[in-house]
Amino acid sequence: MKDWLRFSVAFWHSIRNDGSDPFGFPTKRWPWDAAPAGCEDPPPPIELAKRRMRAVFELMRKLGVDLWCFHDRDIAPRGDTLEETNANLDEIVEYAAQLQEGTDIRPLWGTAQLFAEPHYMHGAATSPSVDVFVRAAAQVKKAMDATARLGGENFNFWGGREGYAFLPTTELKTERTHAAMFFKMARDYWVKDLKQKGKPLLIEPKPQEPSKHQYDWDVGTTAGFLREFGLEKDFKLNVECNHATLAGHSCSHEIETAVAMDMLGGLDANTGDPQVGWDTDQFMTDGREAALVLSAIVRSKGFAPGGINFDAKTRRESTDVNDLLYAHIGGMDAMANGLKLAAKLVDPDGALERVKRERYSSWASELGAKIEKGKATLKELEKLALEADGEPAVGSGKQELADNIIAAVVG
Amino acid sequence: MKDWLRFSVAFWHSIRNDGSDPFGFPTKRWPWDAAPAGCEDPPPPIELAKRRMRAVFELMRKLGVDLWCFHDRDIAPRGDTLEETNANLDEIVEYAAQLQEGTDIRPLWGTAQLFAEPHYMHGAATSPSVDVFVRAAAQVKKAMDATARLGGENFNFWGGREGYAFLPTTELKTERTHAAMFFKMARDYWVKDLKQKGKPLLIEPKPQEPSKHQYDWDVGTTAGFLREFGLEKDFKLNVECNHATLAGHSCSHEIETAVAMDMLGGLDANTGDPQVGWDTDQFMTDGREAALVLSAIVRSKGFAPGGINFDAKTRRESTDVNDLLYAHIGGMDAMANGLKLAAKLVDPDGALERVKRERYSSWASELGAKIEKGKATLKELEKLALEADGEPAVGSGKQELADNIIAAVVG
Amino acid sequence: MKDWLRFSVAFWHSIRNDGSDPFGFPTKRWPWDAAPAGCEDPPPPIELAKRRMRAVFELMRKLGVDLWCFHDRDIAPRGDTLEETNANLDEIVEYAAQLQEGTDIRPLWGTAQLFAEPHYMHGAATSPSVDVFVRAAAQVKKAMDATARLGGENFNFWGGREGYAFLPTTELKTERTHAAMFFKMARDYWVKDLKQKGKPLLIEPKPQEPSKHQYDWDVGTTAGFLREFGLEKDFKLNVECNHATLAGHSCSHEIETAVAMDMLGGLDANTGDPQVGWDTDQFMTDGREAALVLSAIVRSKGFAPGGINFDAKTRRESTDVNDLLYAHIGGMDAMANGLKLAAKLVDPDGALERVKRERYSSWASELGAKIEKGKATLKELEKLALEADGEPAVGSGKQELADNIIAAVVG
Amino acid sequence: MKDWLRFSVAFWHSIRNDGSDPFGFPTKRWPWDAAPAGCEDPPPPIELAKRRMRAVFELMRKLGVDLWCFHDRDIAPRGDTLEETNANLDEIVEYAAQLQEGTDIRPLWGTAQLFAEPHYMHGAATSPSVDVFVRAAAQVKKAMDATARLGGENFNFWGGREGYAFLPTTELKTERTHAAMFFKMARDYWVKDLKQKGKPLLIEPKPQEPSKHQYDWDVGTTAGFLREFGLEKDFKLNVECNHATLAGHSCSHEIETAVAMDMLGGLDANTGDPQVGWDTDQFMTDGREAALVLSAIVRSKGFAPGGINFDAKTRRESTDVNDLLYAHIGGMDAMANGLKLAAKLVDPDGALERVKRERYSSWASELGAKIEKGKATLKELEKLALEADGEPAVGSGKQELADNIIAAVVG
Repeated sequence: MKDWLRFSVAFWHSIRNDGSDPFGFPTKRWPWDAAPAGCEDPPPPIELAKRRMRAVFELMRKLGVDLWCFHDRDIAPRGDTLEETNANLDEIVEYAAQLQEGTDIRPLWGTAQLFAEPHYMHGAATSPSVDVFVRAAAQVKKAMDATARLGGENFNFWGGREGYAFLPTTELKTERTHAAMFFKMARDYWVKDLKQKGKPLLIEPKPQEPSKHQYDWDVGTTAGFLREFGLEKDFKLNVECNHATLAGHSCSHEIETAVAMDMLGGLDANTGDPQVGWDTDQFMTDGREAALVLSAIVRSKGFAPGGINFDAKTRRESTDVNDLLYAHIGGMDAMANGLKLAAKLVDPDGALERVKRERYSSWASELGAKIEKGKATLKELEKLALEADGEPAVGSGKQELADNIIAAVVG
Repeated sequence: MKDWLRFSVAFWHSIRNDGSDPFGFPTKRWPWDAAPAGCEDPPPPIELAKRRMRAVFELMRKLGVDLWCFHDRDIAPRGDTLEETNANLDEIVEYAAQLQEGTDIRPLWGTAQLFAEPHYMHGAATSPSVDVFVRAAAQVKKAMDATARLGGENFNFWGGREGYAFLPTTELKTERTHAAMFFKMARDYWVKDLKQKGKPLLIEPKPQEPSKHQYDWDVGTTAGFLREFGLEKDFKLNVECNHATLAGHSCSHEIETAVAMDMLGGLDANTGDPQVGWDTDQFMTDGREAALVLSAIVRSKGFAPGGINFDAKTRRESTDVNDLLYAHIGGMDAMANGLKLAAKLVDPDGALERVKRERYSSWASELGAKIEKGKATLKELEKLALEADGEPAVGSGKQELADNIIAAVVG
Repeated sequence: MKDWLRFSVAFWHSIRNDGSDPFGFPTKRWPWDAAPAGCEDPPPPIELAKRRMRAVFELMRKLGVDLWCFHDRDIAPRGDTLEETNANLDEIVEYAAQLQEGTDIRPLWGTAQLFAEPHYMHGAATSPSVDVFVRAAAQVKKAMDATARLGGENFNFWGGREGYAFLPTTELKTERTHAAMFFKMARDYWVKDLKQKGKPLLIEPKPQEPSKHQYDWDVGTTAGFLREFGLEKDFKLNVECNHATLAGHSCSHEIETAVAMDMLGGLDANTGDPQVGWDTDQFMTDGREAALVLSAIVRSKGFAPGGINFDAKTRRESTDVNDLLYAHIGGMDAMANGLKLAAKLVDPDGALERVKRERYSSWASELGAKIEKGKATLKELEKLALEADGEPAVGSGKQELADNIIAAVVG
Repeated sequence: MKDWLRFSVAFWHSIRNDGSDPFGFPTKRWPWDAAPAGCEDPPPPIELAKRRMRAVFELMRKLGVDLWCFHDRDIAPRGDTLEETNANLDEIVEYAAQLQEGTDIRPLWGTAQLFAEPHYMHGAATSPSVDVFVRAAAQVKKAMDATARLGGENFNFWGGREGYAFLPTTELKTERTHAAMFFKMARDYWVKDLKQKGKPLLIEPKPQEPSKHQYDWDVGTTAGFLREFGLEKDFKLNVECNHATLAGHSCSHEIETAVAMDMLGGLDANTGDPQVGWDTDQFMTDGREAALVLSAIVRSKGFAPGGINFDAKTRRESTDVNDLLYAHIGGMDAMANGLKLAAKLVDPDGALERVKRERYSSWASELGAKIEKGKATLKELEKLALEADGEPAVGSGKQELADNIIAAVVG
């Protein structure tokens, strides 16, 4: 099961989530943010960053998880200049490397946080300011350096502000082109300079929030964008469940679509609230949902070197340290339970797969093969249709039977 | 203005809309559906079809519109066999050709109705039954013949049931592949057999309804699908405003995205209800909405040989023949008014374009050009960023100013 | 379990659903709609209606269900005049009464179908035409007669067209007043003339569809409307799960809200598709969803003489008679399973209830009681607040723990 | 026009909006937040609060607006104890009173901010902690004192956290009862102690955000809640447009519903993004939208002593002080323009009102009057229906004509 469920802890949601929201102040005061008795409080920024790094390692140890994900800016403090900021990042990365030593722990992926600072307010790679584009490029380079140094298995891009706030003042074509050039440079640096070929680059689609519209809307749109600019071999997709539902899809849909295009690179395991129009990033605890999401992954034999990142946070009102443990334990249990259920659902001898196979059985013919190879023509098919006797036969879709089969497996 | 506003009347919504809905019986009894005094009532199917064809020509004459759009099955009655059905279609197409003679009237596009009959319940090109695929291929061939015969300027595909009802029993990859093979055959027939090169094939995206999920979800997804199968040069996109909003986008967004990819092929001018989760296909009468939708089209110099199809219907409760005229007149006025407003909005010397240009001015540099050509690297940009003094400068997005400029133009 | 799960079969969805949708023709040809060999086909309307009535009784027998729900117009054919229509209804009602004889079978509820016919296109009780109001009143009277004759346990109102298509031409206040007068007359007739006191009248909220906006939007709005016109003692609410989600609520929310106001009268057990903006009326098969929905009902000790109506239909693509059985069996199993799980969830000694009780424990004080009785004043509470030491204490909401408890129970 | 358009500036959005969002740091550095040259920077909290108060008065002067709205906690700094906090508020309120002196400036309404501090994370009046309820009561008392002192015309309640995060651990009935007791105490204090009868108390509905579900969901639900607890005479409703759309309604719907119940107390003039699932609080600049919103208000002769509060903020990316002016000017222009258009739309001799009147003309009969008075019975209406000849007549709804009339007026 460990080969399949390559769990990762998200640094930001676990260690940095202070419970604030757009209408409220922080509610959580974490022990790792407090200075030890008798020491300067709050601790100096670098010390604080190290305390937090130790905290995430302790959390991983407690959970038995050996992958983690991070944003550059969340693990190390900003300095007064980019140079200082980079030096801070270097110091923390070396500190994390030491903590990793002698363990199996390494990042599932790193990423550059290109959305919080004011200069990224209009976007990073898609900013109307070329200076911001340059700054974002520098930041990605450094974040890639850090990820490679720590042995990260992927590098991820989430373009929270790569989109627009207001279409009438946006040059859509220009911004999309800039994004593509940005991804090309990043790919070149990752593969050629850092020699990380085999460690996939990921893009994580999201339709909106904070942008009114994000260019990486969903799997279909992002894959299309990559193909438009000849990047489809260089990037895979990191599907987040709550992003899927915000885009109007089920999470299974996004996973299945990425698998169908051989572009699935990872899963951000969380869930949303079906009645809420923003990303709630809750831990997924529903075994049925987990089973359906994992089905496509099981059928396609997993997605290593990708993994399952708990991109999920405890609620604003969950103010105890234990809540963080409850949350991860619940999330891990749901995925483990879901994997067992998924294995039953996708069993080729199982009832569900039999229903599915039966539905498509007419394609297992010479004619079906010819069509699938692109060798048929409208003219010859018209001839066949005219010769055929009566209406083409279609059978029941048997959705209720399939629903019952699923319910019998997953409850 | 006529060159820009190539209006088209939709046969189905104008002539065949009987006011029924999922909870209600027909409310409209059109004069063209009634038999003349002393004649068999209802008239025999072919006679009825001809009465309806005369009605749509009369409507076009009254409106001064010389383009129309049609589904094969709406203009001619089904027969007992495909052969008979085809013969009926031939008869009606010849009748329409006669009515067209000596006029400028011709179809903007024709299409095959591949969603109403029971055998298409699981899809047409994406049906799990190969026999249904064959039938759909035959139907498209015949509909293409009809469209070419009548001098149609495009041929359109709307895949209402090309999607799924239930993902767990759907072979997503298989169905997507079948759809691609279907489009390839259709392209070959249209371009090579019918020699219609220069008359674009169109795909009309819609996210769902009747399917729970449609493969041609939106512009980004559909363009990506076309690229995946090497079809992006062969098809353009027919954007429908109400489909855009159902997919979570503004209509302007979909239009701008298609223009940015040079794939805009047509506009289905209608509007939806922002609080309603299904396609209401209302006539667009809001000048502001029309101006924003038309802006991208004006900026990209129009989309002939495409056009603007009124894919809109009078409400179930609008039971007078006059309502059909009010509706089209309102729709035409809104587009005409919107075009004038759009011309002001996109005027390069206008206030809105000045705000926009100013936002991107920093890219008009040697560095900007280098990046846009894909000649820059992360390393050299990092060097620039480190040398730069302080935070990258970004200016106000000025959305409120832009909003006021738009309000001053469009009210 | 039978006392709690008072299941009811919906005549319309089970017997009359022909698989048609707004984009497609019927797909289902039921055996009970076909004439026996050698007989007139289709059978004469009254014969057909009797065949259908026998079919629903056979279905109930097969399922072991002894409640059913009906619309007046679905069980009996329309005649040329209201008199004829009423006579048809009388004949079928007597036929159903015969079939009921010697069994425990009786209606859970009857209702008047006030939305399908063209004269109801603008509404029934809220029609701008007084003649339509009169017709609707006559129809409700007759439907009440029929329901009482058959021993129905409730009479239900679902106001599909009691709302508006277009607000700018709607007199909102007038229409709401007419609706209230209509309900008053109906109550008087049911209670005084028919002497059905003790058999609750129900209103079934739905936010929209077919109307753009329905007045009985949700539980909160409908209860408010009833109170506004002094009708809150006379009507209870029949909550439908799919209507709840269309209104932006979870089904549990609507149930809990109705229970909190002591106004829950029944449950329409179905489910929707969270990504779809219309009523899909699917059978609920998810045990977790069922457990959460049933929790409030178990806690409030059930809702007899209400019941659980399967207001759910097989999919358009489910064309076999067996699909109807699969569907109901799946729905019944889910509710039975859900009831067992709900009993665990609401067990006062269970982990979930303990978490909940602990959260509110500070109210079990003299001060709490005083406030709840409305005896406290702002002034005295200010005094207490000023005297209190420091910030008021709040504990963790423990949502993740509660999620895990629920997952441990329901999977 | 000034009598109708009683504009108010929102202190929080104008003066305190720093551009931060859930994914980003502040982007705005306002001149009033900076210390004067040579002074302590940042200024001491009370000095800063006075600078901000002067800023809002300057803004009002520049705009020619003499009403403002405030939250207690936004205008004055928190102290270490409630006593200190109250003293700070007193000082700032007296300072504001001085600034008001000799002007027409006074608050449209004040309110208590019961959602930002950690102790309110589970709600204020609906907190599971009685201590929090007490604190909230004390805070409302003080905020009412401040509002009365400044001559505010209303006192408003927006219950951002009066709802739930997680239904399974929520005592819905208990929380709703506590909310009602809270409102009763507040009413008693406002009317009896402060003698503010005639200055309406307002509740501002919102469906969710920050809560997953808020009890004051929309106008219908909130009115129902007030009636349930006998408070409907004591509170009016302050409708916010963006809250209306989040609840699935048009803003016009909410306004018209409140007017129909004689419960409209004010308008928060803003707009949302129809494709976005959270409150964007944008300035409304669309004249059409403004005209439709204002129509009901004009028809019901205004809502003084209520007013129109610009509960709207400049975008995160609008970082210039001028953007604040552009925004308010745009908002005021839209309302002024909308008022003129609304006056035309609701003109009894205008085309739209004629269409509307004609629709309901059949009710102007003896029968109509009898029904509206509640004097008719089902039995006598059945008799009329049976006597009537044929189907009840209904005319076309003429929505397209009405759409054209509106377009002719508002563009």
